[in-house]
Amino acid sequence: MSQPQHDGPNPVGEFDLIRWIRDRTPSAGPTVLGIGDDCALLRPSPGAELVVTTDMLMDGRHFRLDEAGAEAVGRKAMGVNLSDIAAMAARPVAAVVAVALPTRDGRAVAIARDLHAGLTAAAARFGVTLVGGDTNAWDGPLVVAVTVFGETTPRGAVRRSGAKPGDAVFVTGPLGGSLLGRHLSPEPRIAEALALHAAAPLHALIDLSDGLSSDLGHVLDESGGLGAVLDAGAIPVHPDAVALSARDGRSPLDHALSDGEDFELCFTVAPGDADRLAAAPPEPARLYRVGEIVTRPGLWLRQADGSLTRVDPSGFDHLRRPPQGA
Amino acid sequence: MSQPQHDGPNPVGEFDLIRWIRDRTPSAGPTVLGIGDDCALLRPSPGAELVVTTDMLMDGRHFRLDEAGAEAVGRKAMGVNLSDIAAMAARPVAAVVAVALPTRDGRAVAIARDLHAGLTAAAARFGVTLVGGDTNAWDGPLVVAVTVFGETTPRGAVRRSGAKPGDAVFVTGPLGGSLLGRHLSPEPRIAEALALHAAAPLHALIDLSDGLSSDLGHVLDESGGLGAVLDAGAIPVHPDAVALSARDGRSPLDHALSDGEDFELCFTVAPGDADRLAAAPPEPARLYRVGEIVTRPGLWLRQADGSLTRVDPSGFDHLRRPPQGA
Repeated sequence: MSQPQHDGPNPVGEFDLIRWIRDRTPSAGPTVLGIGDDCALLRPSPGAELVVTTDMLMDGRHFRLDEAGAEAVGRKAMGVNLSDIAAMAARPVAAVVAVALPTRDGRAVAIARDLHAGLTAAAARFGVTLVGGDTNAWDGPLVVAVTVFGETTPRGAVRRSGAKPGDAVFVTGPLGGSLLGRHLSPEPRIAEALALHAAAPLHALIDLSDGLSSDLGHVLDESGGLGAVLDAGAIPVHPDAVALSARDGRSPLDHALSDGEDFELCFTVAPGDADRLAAAPPEPARLYRVGEIVTRPGLWLRQADGSLTRVDPSGFDHLRRPPQGA
Repeated sequence: MSQPQHDGPNPVGEFDLIRWIRDRTPSAGPTVLGIGDDCALLRPSPGAELVVTTDMLMDGRHFRLDEAGAEAVGRKAMGVNLSDIAAMAARPVAAVVAVALPTRDGRAVAIARDLHAGLTAAAARFGVTLVGGDTNAWDGPLVVAVTVFGETTPRGAVRRSGAKPGDAVFVTGPLGGSLLGRHLSPEPRIAEALALHAAAPLHALIDLSDGLSSDLGHVLDESGGLGAVLDAGAIPVHPDAVALSARDGRSPLDHALSDGEDFELCFTVAPGDADRLAAAPPEPARLYRVGEIVTRPGLWLRQADGSLTRVDPSGFDHLRRPPQGA
């Protein structure tokens, strides 16, 4: 990806860079004090609970800086965190960013500027203010750690642990093959989560970062050891999963079940609410009803002929499997 | 440093490791939901403002893993963030941690356990709960990014920007030479900051991470371009600064003014309050009155004979100078 152009003199040194960032970061919303002091100061909305999430992205592991460019890295780093806020059906408010900039080729400051452009572009789309951070440089690869804060709506946060037998299982978009490039441009389903939670009490909610089989497995575990039956024909398969299947011989459905970094939502609701949501999905959500929660533990795939096969929770484990996108 | 021993089977894989960490992390205080969901959930105290800070530490830059051991790294990573909370005179509440574990020598899980032990030990001393995080592994060096949340007291946060001409300048401990080892064991002055702010309205407050001349320079800049006169004989010089001086020929006072990572506090107060605080420092604070704020911009050193020399704000700039402790 080409590097965006910037006007004005190049900032030099850490304090200049912090000033440069501060000058380009609007202070808004509940921010009392933004970049430039020892801490940021925020004023929580009365009655709201605070949701907090953090995700770290490393060059060679979650992206390749040389291929993606620092601006895309910034958008991904902010996007994956916003996706976690969506996964609680909360409203994102503010973010802090810690970064280790690579000094090797003398481009640390240029990388910082492009990274900042990507971070703030992704943040601004969702009303999030960058309120603080920590800028470091070293001779290692680029590392970006983002922490995002949000607030619950009056309906409260939706956890992973609330699934009930009989619940319908939904996902919000086609799955699989994000490795072909989509993993760099997560679309946090913030508006979708808020609209869905306002339309019906969601029982359990998670974003699909590790893969449907793995992430739904977390919901089943956290909900007391339940199971789920997924209808093989109902799972929306992304064209990228088909394209990847043609390369590696694994079926498109396998990619849809196992690939990570889709950043769609997966949720469960009571059957009556499910019928209502499926008939008239609240804007801007797209809905795919893919199965139901059962008492028998495990994840099961139901074929058109009614036969059941067990699915391994074969999603992405960072300590076990080679990374996606690296 | 030797590695601490742990009982029980070794956790394998990311999800096992998260479970292992969760089992060892108490849920307390305002934490509604801790480790294990997409976000942590916190309930803010009514009326309090939220303070947020983040700091990233990298192997070879802020510590040497092979020399310090992962437990000391965890203590430092939590300590430097808590020091930023102290620098606002706020009360720390909760923390999230994102980590990149080195896989090269097969010790990623052992490092994670020792790191967690250090993080939680430092957090527990100050009533802070580890509420969430992100665990990654790669073939690069260890990177730890900690974000800490705190709450203001009824007196509010103390910023860098409130210094006034005539204010007295204090520090809370002897300075310089932390490179000899103290930089690994920051003692966040949380109790000191809260006691001082309860005893008198502090005008400006900062923690000494970059070095007194540099950090006080930030206070002067943020307070509208003021100056300060420091009494050379009043600046408390740490024995480590003397030891380092014997090695490198720079004066102990130069080390006290310029070395970073002391993690003492520097604050300014009105002269009347200064006299009162100096006469009876509120426990557990130790106080050293080192100078005064003046209208003439710049940082000045006053010798016993009354002569003034200008001090360069020569503290640590991460993008410009070689690091301490690396």
